Amino acid sequence: MKFSPLVQELIDTLKCLPGVGAKSAQRMAFHLLERNRAGGEKLANALGKAMIHIGHCQQCRNFTEDELCQICQSPKRKISETMCIVENPADVIAIEQTGEFQGRYFILMGHLSPLDGIGPDDLGLDVLSKQLETGQFREVILATNPTVEGEATAHYIAELASKYQLTISRIAHGVPVGGELEYVDGNTLSHAFSGRKSYQY
Amino acid sequence: MKFSPLVQELIDTLKCLPGVGAKSAQRMAFHLLERNRAGGEKLANALGKAMIHIGHCQQCRNFTEDELCQICQSPKRKISETMCIVENPADVIAIEQTGEFQGRYFILMGHLSPLDGIGPDDLGLDVLSKQLETGQFREVILATNPTVEGEATAHYIAELASKYQLTISRIAHGVPVGGELEYVDGNTLSHAFSGRKSYQY
Ligand SMILES: [Zn+2]
Ligand SMILES: [Zn+2]
Repeated sequence: MKFSPLVQELIDTLKCLPGVGAKSAQRMAFHLLERNRAGGEKLANALGKAMIHIGHCQQCRNFTEDELCQICQSPKRKISETMCIVENPADVIAIEQTGEFQGRYFILMGHLSPLDGIGPDDLGLDVLSKQLETGQFREVILATNPTVEGEATAHYIAELASKYQLTISRIAHGVPVGGELEYVDGNTLSHAFSGRKSYQY
Repeated sequence: MKFSPLVQELIDTLKCLPGVGAKSAQRMAFHLLERNRAGGEKLANALGKAMIHIGHCQQCRNFTEDELCQICQSPKRKISETMCIVENPADVIAIEQTGEFQGRYFILMGHLSPLDGIGPDDLGLDVLSKQLETGQFREVILATNPTVEGEATAHYIAELASKYQLTISRIAHGVPVGGELEYVDGNTLSHAFSGRKSYQY
């Protein structure tokens, strides 16, 4: 015995969401059916539109329903000579929130992962090369995650970018601001030491 | 700065799923957009149909897209004299899988919860009364959860059902089969003692 066909279909399709197993899918289905039909309809609608209309920005690869994303469309960014390379769209949001950076982005949508069959072309590095070739950029900031995969990806891109006349930099690793030394992992702490700078009076 | 309008709308609507906050909603949206558009479209479709077409069985209140659910439609169940009352549709599946019960169900879709404003009518107890009134049933099995709310709900229904000429029973509480005594909580263990039966040779 199973649930009625439509209920079962709803539960089965909810399992395509990452981190959602049979039990959570059931709970989600019942919650929507019992307590939030309006929310469920809105989600169905948003999902349908998103899957059809959202593509990648032709320049930076970020998700957008337009040809160019909002950042790439901005006249000030268009002429920027700095490009920041990140793994994910959420990284762009995080960096934008700091207000620290006004240049262009390039979003890899992942990192090199040979075991998962994710190589340079999957990260759009061919597209990246063409943009660096134009000579518009004077600096490339590698802002991939400070993980093994993120470092390997940064290293690969640094080599690729070394063909062009530009500064290649990596965001600083170290003790998080406001963090307490005793709770920082050893790897971060050794980065903090090797990357030490002379004290500014 | 935010994501593009459609991406943001997708993330916002995903948050209507129970247990999904801003971070998981983002992760889900990116996963579908980047790795599983086909799955996302199927989900949009299933959700849309479900929200419109799934209603409640007129007899047992279970979710179904028909007037009567599959169980209530079965000729053998139709004439059953036993009714099992449970809190959720998933309980029906669990009980059906035991093969132990061939009667009818009544699904409360929750339990009494005055603080959340969930009273007898929200659980369909008026509908239940009308079915007991017909005289078809000889036994009502209270299979609500062995929680404070489940017990209170069982108690309320037992009182309501006592008006009719029928046996009212409660599923047995005790040590789970295969469980080890030392890991069973004290409350369950005292239920196991107070509900002890003479040993069957
Ligand atoms: Zn862009
Ligand atoms: Zn039914």
